[in-house]
Amino acid sequence: MPIQAISWSPSGAVRIIDQRALPEAEITRDLESAEAVAEAIRTLQVRGAPLIGIAAAMGLVAAMREDRSLRRPAFLGRLQERATLLGAARPTAVNLRWALDRMLKTAEATAGDGTELWDRLRAEATLIWEEDRAMCRRIGEHGLSILTDGANVLTHCNTGALATGGVGTALAPVYLAHEQGRRVHVYVDETRPLLQGSRLTAWELLHAGISYTLITDATAASLMRQAKVDAVLVGADRICANGDFANKIGTYGLAVLARHHGVPFYCAAPWSTVDATLADGDLIPIEQRAPGEVTVLAGRSIAPAGATALNPAFDVTPARYVTGFITDRGILQPPFSSE
Amino acid sequence: MPIQAISWSPSGAVRIIDQRALPEAEITRDLESAEAVAEAIRTLQVRGAPLIGIAAAMGLVAAMREDRSLRRPAFLGRLQERATLLGAARPTAVNLRWALDRMLKTAEATAGDGTELWDRLRAEATLIWEEDRAMCRRIGEHGLSILTDGANVLTHCNTGALATGGVGTALAPVYLAHEQGRRVHVYVDETRPLLQGSRLTAWELLHAGISYTLITDATAASLMRQAKVDAVLVGADRICANGDFANKIGTYGLAVLARHHGVPFYCAAPWSTVDATLADGDLIPIEQRAPGEVTVLAGRSIAPAGATALNPAFDVTPARYVTGFITDRGILQPPFSSE
Repeated sequence: MPIQAISWSPSGAVRIIDQRALPEAEITRDLESAEAVAEAIRTLQVRGAPLIGIAAAMGLVAAMREDRSLRRPAFLGRLQERATLLGAARPTAVNLRWALDRMLKTAEATAGDGTELWDRLRAEATLIWEEDRAMCRRIGEHGLSILTDGANVLTHCNTGALATGGVGTALAPVYLAHEQGRRVHVYVDETRPLLQGSRLTAWELLHAGISYTLITDATAASLMRQAKVDAVLVGADRICANGDFANKIGTYGLAVLARHHGVPFYCAAPWSTVDATLADGDLIPIEQRAPGEVTVLAGRSIAPAGATALNPAFDVTPARYVTGFITDRGILQPPFSSE
Repeated sequence: MPIQAISWSPSGAVRIIDQRALPEAEITRDLESAEAVAEAIRTLQVRGAPLIGIAAAMGLVAAMREDRSLRRPAFLGRLQERATLLGAARPTAVNLRWALDRMLKTAEATAGDGTELWDRLRAEATLIWEEDRAMCRRIGEHGLSILTDGANVLTHCNTGALATGGVGTALAPVYLAHEQGRRVHVYVDETRPLLQGSRLTAWELLHAGISYTLITDATAASLMRQAKVDAVLVGADRICANGDFANKIGTYGLAVLARHHGVPFYCAAPWSTVDATLADGDLIPIEQRAPGEVTVLAGRSIAPAGATALNPAFDVTPARYVTGFITDRGILQPPFSSE
């Protein structure tokens, strides 16, 4: 079974797996307040764009439990305060803002006082979560066609159950194939510098009983040369109108290597990842992260003190390298428009 | 100035830099006995094929200092014992065996007792070292032609002063260009799993005052796409008759990426790396190392307990991807024959 990254606790708190502690320990936390959820998002106990949005929505509900007796204006005031607090936890996370805005609009559009508003908000947060689960499953179903029995898939970063409310995006076809009894094996890029592959993807596949092999990022080319990879499956952080897309650094190199070796290369992502306001990949801003992520690991220096390092979080893969975009609307080809 | 990885101490011991401690500390050790040198080789205080050979030859001399008063048979007996001890430190290291055999043959071919034999052995060990320094410099001189002023070079693993008695192999052209006042900048692949790039190459370039930028292995493709790399320079562990060569895992991927982006890709190595008894790269055995090198870092698990990992130490790059082989005999093209 895929791990469940988020759920309601019996008392109505937000139950999460603390992803900072993985893979060394599986720690479940029940987050009782908006402050606790914001802290969990800020410190990457909860990560993955879809999962952050769900956590924020559920966090609002958990935080408002004690305020159900308030009259409407006081309740809405407290709700707004807590949404602001949660929204500041990761300011650039699009899903976080989107989920909070949806919750606020739902409250405003609902009649009544605290009790009625809270019931509606709890239903809305659960709906956001369920929509995400359904989205994951649709991606998985559309992607099933590319995974024949015995397929070897190579993936990068973490795009699985730990990044979403359901079975993930790029890993969704793998989970569904496994569920249907097809044999599938996943080569997991460790994904330096933050090691989402070794820390998270390997862990969740192991948890689900899916066969995998962890490799360093530089091993992928050699496996493709040996014809050990049948398909590459990666996620996306943003997809442009022409199909160029940004994803974790290293994705572009895999795309070139896949093309060179005749290996199909798929990008799997929710349709909501398409940003048709961007014509092409040159317009995607690339976040440059701290060099310390490259030069220090687990508190230990792995490069000389003061070493110069470059740490782009993402790269851009041109659409021409992509065999297909596996979305909740089907396997698509660019160009993409917003509706 | 390039770091000097090995030298004689004033008292005649083998002075090394303890490469295990890099980059956190620069520790110089004077190894007084064959046991100490063997331990240093076994525990990777000294690594790099050429440097290991030099260390073993010098180690024999340091160890025999106290035996100079012995008569010839007793001296040769002790010498053989110590050569056996040193040879067992890394059984598969070709240069180690080669250097020890050369020292033993030199002793047998020299007339006299302990005093005469020891003087000759000391001269021979120094000669092995000096030949290595000269070899590095010749590689550097031949490679200079590919490094114009302002060149950006990308390299993988450590092939510099810390791997040899001189200025290295693939880094030799960089050192010589810097010495001549040409501006050159090196992108240093960190080289997972053992991080020779971040721990050693970045450190020795910093020490030498050469401009460099450390990157994760998966960042190289994106830099090439941005036209930030003018040439790729890598070393070789073994070169076949047809020019296929084995080098640190990740080298083949760089070769494919370089070809795709029109970036020249050079392999720099001593002529002695050519093994013309192997017709092509399919015949090179690839060492599979322990999964723990991938799953544990600095004593901390970075993958789930018991994770399945693949850890090939090398990959094979077919000759057709190589722009030229920079050797101490010039920039060459295959096929190669032993003489």
